[in-house]
Amino acid sequence: MSSFDEILTQGARGDALLPSGFADLLPGEAEAEARGIACVMEAFSRHGYQRVRPPMLEFENALLNGAGSALQNQTFRLMDPNSHRMMALRPDMTTQIARIAQIRLADAPRPLRLSYSGSCIVVGTPGRETDRQVSQAGIELIGPDSAVADAEVIALGAQALDELGIADVSFDLSMPALALGVIDGAIAEKDRAALLHALDRKDAGAVAALGGSIAETLLALLRAAGPADRALEILRGLALPEAVRPHLDRLVESIAALRARRPGIRLTVDPVEFRGWQYHTGLCVTVFAAGSREELGRGGRYLAGSEPACGLTLRPQALLRAAPLPPARPRCYVPLEISGDALSALHTQGFATVSALAQDAQLEAEALRLSCTHFWRDGAAHAL
Amino acid sequence: MSSFDEILTQGARGDALLPSGFADLLPGEAEAEARGIACVMEAFSRHGYQRVRPPMLEFENALLNGAGSALQNQTFRLMDPNSHRMMALRPDMTTQIARIAQIRLADAPRPLRLSYSGSCIVVGTPGRETDRQVSQAGIELIGPDSAVADAEVIALGAQALDELGIADVSFDLSMPALALGVIDGAIAEKDRAALLHALDRKDAGAVAALGGSIAETLLALLRAAGPADRALEILRGLALPEAVRPHLDRLVESIAALRARRPGIRLTVDPVEFRGWQYHTGLCVTVFAAGSREELGRGGRYLAGSEPACGLTLRPQALLRAAPLPPARPRCYVPLEISGDALSALHTQGFATVSALAQDAQLEAEALRLSCTHFWRDGAAHAL
Repeated sequence: MSSFDEILTQGARGDALLPSGFADLLPGEAEAEARGIACVMEAFSRHGYQRVRPPMLEFENALLNGAGSALQNQTFRLMDPNSHRMMALRPDMTTQIARIAQIRLADAPRPLRLSYSGSCIVVGTPGRETDRQVSQAGIELIGPDSAVADAEVIALGAQALDELGIADVSFDLSMPALALGVIDGAIAEKDRAALLHALDRKDAGAVAALGGSIAETLLALLRAAGPADRALEILRGLALPEAVRPHLDRLVESIAALRARRPGIRLTVDPVEFRGWQYHTGLCVTVFAAGSREELGRGGRYLAGSEPACGLTLRPQALLRAAPLPPARPRCYVPLEISGDALSALHTQGFATVSALAQDAQLEAEALRLSCTHFWRDGAAHAL
Repeated sequence: MSSFDEILTQGARGDALLPSGFADLLPGEAEAEARGIACVMEAFSRHGYQRVRPPMLEFENALLNGAGSALQNQTFRLMDPNSHRMMALRPDMTTQIARIAQIRLADAPRPLRLSYSGSCIVVGTPGRETDRQVSQAGIELIGPDSAVADAEVIALGAQALDELGIADVSFDLSMPALALGVIDGAIAEKDRAALLHALDRKDAGAVAALGGSIAETLLALLRAAGPADRALEILRGLALPEAVRPHLDRLVESIAALRARRPGIRLTVDPVEFRGWQYHTGLCVTVFAAGSREELGRGGRYLAGSEPACGLTLRPQALLRAAPLPPARPRCYVPLEISGDALSALHTQGFATVSALAQDAQLEAEALRLSCTHFWRDGAAHAL
C-alpha cells in the first residue's frame, strides 16, 4: 500500500496536493523555465554582470532591514533550532544583493555589476490566487547615480527579453518622487492619504475635489500617462515647484540615454504610478509584453544601504508564458548494445537518446510507446 | 545611516551575518556552481531524462510520507496562513519526484526518466558545521527493476562527472538487504541493534563476540569491503542463506551491466554499509572523488510509492570543490558610445563587455581599476 495512494484519495487532481500558489513544473515547462533563466543570465553575463547566489533564508533582522522592511508582511519566518534566532525565507532577492554589495563586496571597485537568479517565497493574500514561489532573475548596478546607469539597466533588460524571443515589450516608466513632491509642498499631511488614493484609482473627479491649489497640475499628471514623448511634452509645460524639477529633468535625461542605447525601445510614462515602489528613490520601471497586462519584470533606483543602486528583476514564470516555447529536443530510441561512439554521434546531431533496457526490445514499437520522435536502425536515426 | 552599517557592527566578518550552514556564493563561485549544474543537467537531458521542477515547499503530510518519513527530523515546518495547514521545506527532492511520477505523470509510459535540480533545506545538527542549504541535481529511472536499470543510472552519473572534468571518481556500492538478511535469520531481535552498531563501526572484535552462529560470515563481509572484484570473490565463497542469495546475484549482475556500459569505471563494494540508506530497497551507491572522502553524490534503488525506482543525486556544492574551476570569461572595458555591432563582435569573441558610464572615461585606467582583462581602442580589444 503506497503512501501516495492515500494522498491521492484526498484530492482528485494532482494540483490539489500542493498549497495554493505552489506548482510542479512538468517536462517541457521545467525545461523551458530553465532555458529561459539560462538565456537571461547569459545576456547579463555578457554585459559584465557577475553572478552571486545568496541563500534561501537568512536571519530575520538582516533580511527585513532597510529596503527589505517593506516586505515584512509577505515573509515566512522560522526558528533556527541551532542559534535560537528567527530566520526568514527571502520574499525578494534585492535586499540580499544589496547586503552582499555592502558587506561581502565592500572593497570591490564601483560601479559594481551583479546578477542573480533564484526562487523567492511570499506569504500571498488569502483568496487571491497568485504564485507564492516566485522565480527571479535580475541585475543590480551599484555605485553610480546617473541617467546613463538607469539606461544601462533597462536597456539590458530589453536586450535579454529580445534574446528570449519576447520582442514586443513595453517599458512603463514612473518617477514617484515627482508627484509626491508636488503633493508634499501643497497639501496638508492629514489630507494626503485620500488624495493619493484618488490618484491611485486614476479618479479625476476625486483628484479635482481633493487637489486644492494643485488640482490642475495633478489632473495634468493624470492626463500625461501614456507614450513617453507626449507625456514629456505635457510634463514640460507644467509649472512645477523648484524642488520637483530635478526629478523631471532626470526622467527626461534617462529617457534620452535609454533611446541612445536602444533606439527602438517602446516607452510609456505614468507620472502618478507609485504603487509597489516601497523602497525606490528615483526612476521606476515595469515591463509588460505587448497585448498583456502581466508584468514580465520590474525595477528601479533605490539605496543599497547608503549606496545609489539601480536594478531590474525579470520574472521567469511570466517570461515562460510570454516567450515562444523552445523546440523540444528530438528523442531517439536506441538499442541497449549501441556503441558509445554511435551514441555520441546522435548527441552531436542534437538528439536526446532513450536507451532500451533489454536486448530483445522491439525498437520501433517501443519508440512509439515512449513518445520518441526517432528510433535507431542500421546505424542511423529514423523518424517515426 | 544605513541599516547594513548597524548589522556590520554585530559581526566582524560577512559570514557571521548568516545562520550557520547558509552561505553567499560570490562572483566566480556562483558562476561555477551554475555552470556545473547546467553541465550535469545537459548530460541528463541528452540521455533522455526530462526535467521536472517541484516547489520548494509542500504540505507536510505529502512531503514527509512514505520514503520522505526518514527525513522528519531534518525538516523545517511552517504554517500556511491561507489554508491553516502545516507546510514543510523540502529536505530532499526524491520524494517530490516520486510524487510527480505517481500522481502527475501516472499516465506517462514507463520506464519514466526524470531529472531535477534545486535547493533543499535541512535542519542540521547543532555544533556540526555542515551545509544546511544543499543543492541537488539528479535523475530518477522509474518503472523497471533490473540490473540494467541500476547500471544506466550509475553510468549516467559517471558520464556527467566526466563531462564536468571530475574524471577520477570512485563508486562505492552496497546492498544493505544482504547483510541485514544474514542477521535477521540468525540473531534474536533484541540483540540486533548492538551487532549493527558494531558492524557500523567496523569493529571486528565486537562482531566476533556478538555474531553467534554467523560471526564467521559477518567477519568475511567486513573483510570483503574494497575493490569490487575481490569483494565479489569473497562474497561468492560464503555459505549465504537461500533468502539472501538473490541480493548477491543482483549485485553481481548490476556490476556486470555497469561494466558493460562503462568499462573503465572504478567500483568498490562495502557489504556492511547501511548507514544513511533509510528508504532504499536494493543496490545503493555513494560517489567519491579519488583522494577525498567528500561525497559527490549518492543514490540507489527504492520504491516510488508502489513503483520500483532507481535514482542518483549529485551535490553541486561538492562538485564545485572537486571540479577544475572553469576559465573566467575575459572582460573588455568599452566606451559608452561603442556601436551595437562592435559590442556583438566582442560577445561573439567570448568577451564580457563592461561599459563606461560617461563619455570622457579614461578607458585603460578604468579598465585596470575595474579588474578587466582588456580595454577597447581603435576598434579592437587590447589585453591589459
